[in-house]
Amino acid sequence: MQHERFRKHGKDVIDWIADYMTNGYDGPVFPKTQPGEVLAQLPMEPPQEAEPGEQVFADFESLILPHTTHWNDPRFYAYFPANHSGPGILGDLLSAGLGVNGMSWVTSPAATELEMRMIDWLGHMLKLPWRGCIQDTASTATFCALLAAREQVADVNQSGFYQQQPMTVYASKHAHSSMQKAVWMAGFGERYLRLVPGNDDDFAMDAAVLAQMVAEDIAAGFRPTFVMSTVGTTSSTAIDPVHAVADICEANNMWHHVDAALAGTAAILPEMRWILDGTERADSFCFNPHKWMFTNFDCSVLLVKSPDALKKAMAINPEYLKAGHDAVVENFRDWGPQLGRRFRALKLWYVIRCFGVAGLQDKIRAHLNMTRWFADQVRAEPRTHLLTEPKINTVCFHLDDDAATKALMKAVNDSGEAYLSHTVLRDRYVIRVSFGQIHQSQQHVATLWGLISRLLP
Amino acid sequence: MQHERFRKHGKDVIDWIADYMTNGYDGPVFPKTQPGEVLAQLPMEPPQEAEPGEQVFADFESLILPHTTHWNDPRFYAYFPANHSGPGILGDLLSAGLGVNGMSWVTSPAATELEMRMIDWLGHMLKLPWRGCIQDTASTATFCALLAAREQVADVNQSGFYQQQPMTVYASKHAHSSMQKAVWMAGFGERYLRLVPGNDDDFAMDAAVLAQMVAEDIAAGFRPTFVMSTVGTTSSTAIDPVHAVADICEANNMWHHVDAALAGTAAILPEMRWILDGTERADSFCFNPHKWMFTNFDCSVLLVKSPDALKKAMAINPEYLKAGHDAVVENFRDWGPQLGRRFRALKLWYVIRCFGVAGLQDKIRAHLNMTRWFADQVRAEPRTHLLTEPKINTVCFHLDDDAATKALMKAVNDSGEAYLSHTVLRDRYVIRVSFGQIHQSQQHVATLWGLISRLLP
Ligand SMILES: Cc1ncc(COP(=O)(O)O)c(C=O)c1O
Ligand SMILES: Cc1ncc(COP(=O)(O)O)c(C=O)c1O
Repeated sequence: MQHERFRKHGKDVIDWIADYMTNGYDGPVFPKTQPGEVLAQLPMEPPQEAEPGEQVFADFESLILPHTTHWNDPRFYAYFPANHSGPGILGDLLSAGLGVNGMSWVTSPAATELEMRMIDWLGHMLKLPWRGCIQDTASTATFCALLAAREQVADVNQSGFYQQQPMTVYASKHAHSSMQKAVWMAGFGERYLRLVPGNDDDFAMDAAVLAQMVAEDIAAGFRPTFVMSTVGTTSSTAIDPVHAVADICEANNMWHHVDAALAGTAAILPEMRWILDGTERADSFCFNPHKWMFTNFDCSVLLVKSPDALKKAMAINPEYLKAGHDAVVENFRDWGPQLGRRFRALKLWYVIRCFGVAGLQDKIRAHLNMTRWFADQVRAEPRTHLLTEPKINTVCFHLDDDAATKALMKAVNDSGEAYLSHTVLRDRYVIRVSFGQIHQSQQHVATLWGLISRLLP
Repeated sequence: MQHERFRKHGKDVIDWIADYMTNGYDGPVFPKTQPGEVLAQLPMEPPQEAEPGEQVFADFESLILPHTTHWNDPRFYAYFPANHSGPGILGDLLSAGLGVNGMSWVTSPAATELEMRMIDWLGHMLKLPWRGCIQDTASTATFCALLAAREQVADVNQSGFYQQQPMTVYASKHAHSSMQKAVWMAGFGERYLRLVPGNDDDFAMDAAVLAQMVAEDIAAGFRPTFVMSTVGTTSSTAIDPVHAVADICEANNMWHHVDAALAGTAAILPEMRWILDGTERADSFCFNPHKWMFTNFDCSVLLVKSPDALKKAMAINPEYLKAGHDAVVENFRDWGPQLGRRFRALKLWYVIRCFGVAGLQDKIRAHLNMTRWFADQVRAEPRTHLLTEPKINTVCFHLDDDAATKALMKAVNDSGEAYLSHTVLRDRYVIRVSFGQIHQSQQHVATLWGLISRLLP
């Protein structure tokens, strides 16, 4: 593609995105695609000769769009918000246009230092003034925290696990599956992962049981190493008792990671900052601007109390990467698993400045109001039941029996007018309605409730 | 940012990128930034009120650009190419605009199936028709391959490492440091990583020594588990003897991963396909379109002979992610460490179609010609010495002594007219000149040689 073609077609793409953001998608939010349907329409072999970008775009419109789940459509209430925004997209576009690899300070000083400052800004917004960096995902952030914990206890990097005293790991039964996966990948073994039950009322981790498990493991000759508290679980945005967990971690010298991937953004509201109470006593913290802070994927923020512990687990400096200022600068490749790093701070810079902190707060507040309004409707309608009081941005509800709940969810999703997802809690099949979509307004939520009401058995 | 502002400012950003691609950057390719210089100019606190995108962009121009290493400027010859291109940028922009999370088939059927087809296309281009997926980086690809190997030998995911027979891992002394880091992260311990010497002539792994090390480890009671061959080492693009390594792996039932992150793209040329000879006998293979295939970061391709082995190591299916077609579709979250996944196949689709296979081949061939031409100049000039015959896209040369080589590199980089990086091989300080920058032409390379000639002592 010549640069002038890029210039022309690029503007068409910008127009398309502006329209998509303004009007949403005019087909169903959740496609009725059959497995293999897209694949069958794509040629088996790549083209030998160049094709115009306009042709690719035409295929995008006819083949990709109708078979896409529209995460950024206001009718999307499934899983968790995974937002883009105009400013985020432009910051990301500039990052692609620049194409720097921010693995080291020297490979782009501005990328490293802007990332440091964005961490300062977020620390200020969350009242958690730690250092940190941007990771791709919360999965990676949890994994990094676990490695840092591991290397504080034993030098597994050098010696391997074989001769070590078995290290145990703890998280809520309702913690995200990436905790389990981190335990697998880092070589601990799921045998040594303890999933602490949540209480039956709001699914928050039971700290008394945690304390007991830790004591039992010590008695059994194990080395309790790591606890993850979740602030905003995936299923129901339950909030673990961070202070009580901190007490146990401090008493037993364990690493304490707080996973607020989904819901942490709410803490930028003064009236919601309490959800992070106690986090200042933890060792690391993660939340995802790519979930609920209008920054397109990927952008997960890991804050740490002691960067040295993280770097001890990850820093590596082969000859071909050595550079003059290594002793005084941060090389963010030493803060995570990957060498190569995209310049992700640019999109955060755009987002925070173009919304302003007050603008971000307004959006989040509006989402919390939608959540409350929706919960009120569920409460008022005799055929629908709240599973638990919604804590942050997610309402979990069900009908009288699982079959009816399932049928309702299917009917809503099949309508193409909204997309919901489910979980199982207290042995019940539960519909989760997750608010926080950037283009969502109270009017959309009223439409959703109207749709549900009409479809109720 | 309102959508109409996005539309307007977005077009300005497109114009800026088009100009940047056409003209390069008019300041130095490598900035003279001092540590802390950018940080000091960024406000300590985020703005409360919204600012216009144009203001952020103005700061980008005045504060970020002058302190950036310009990886996509034709004067960039350091490290490895890390290319963008018009088509890649537009594919990436559409991905940001759509903002889907491709973790599961159901969360965007088109994202999953386009990724599958792009893997088919690349397999066709490389004559390695395996299945696979897109990872963020080669670091992650190596890590995934190592985990797959580990889980084939023992169920560490469940049981941990403690009771296992120690597992040994092998790679060339010249392998990328991400191998070592993968061994750390996955819990093997560097004690069990054997770095096989390269031969002194071209730095390819000595397979006879590998065989001996494996035999010794078996005799010592260890379980040889994984070998990585590198096709195109970072320092000098050395090519390990893949067939000879395959013999040893097959005889000892070890996983064989081929890392061609930097140089694998060359294999899309029929006359260069030999660099991958023997790879069809391996278990996994990685190359980075984000390095030398004009696809902006991140985009690393992992191909595997047995996807089941990979999924055995990584698949996890919590209730809130379960979906109807799970038994018959691929959920790419099961193929890598992270849950969330960007729709990266879009940019590959744009790149392969807008260049065409023939267009990509022309570019790569031109880069190889530049490499040869540059090596000829080094050979012809009595004060410069090739360290080894360049194998692919990188020329390693030095002067008579290390101090002079260092001084030359510094003088070139300080000029701002070119950016080179170094390595140490055969105990010598060596300048690496890496070709493959998308905007590079023979004329740029001639300019580089002119600059070097003028600066020679
Ligand atoms: C041979 C080789 N392998 C792996 C890597 C790591 O690349 P990535 O940043 O994609 O992890 C590199 C990068 O220099 C490389 O040259
Ligand atoms: C609480 C929580 N933690 C972690 C994750 C994983 O997110 P990521 O895709 O960024 O790894 C999620 C995603 O659903 C989550 O809800």
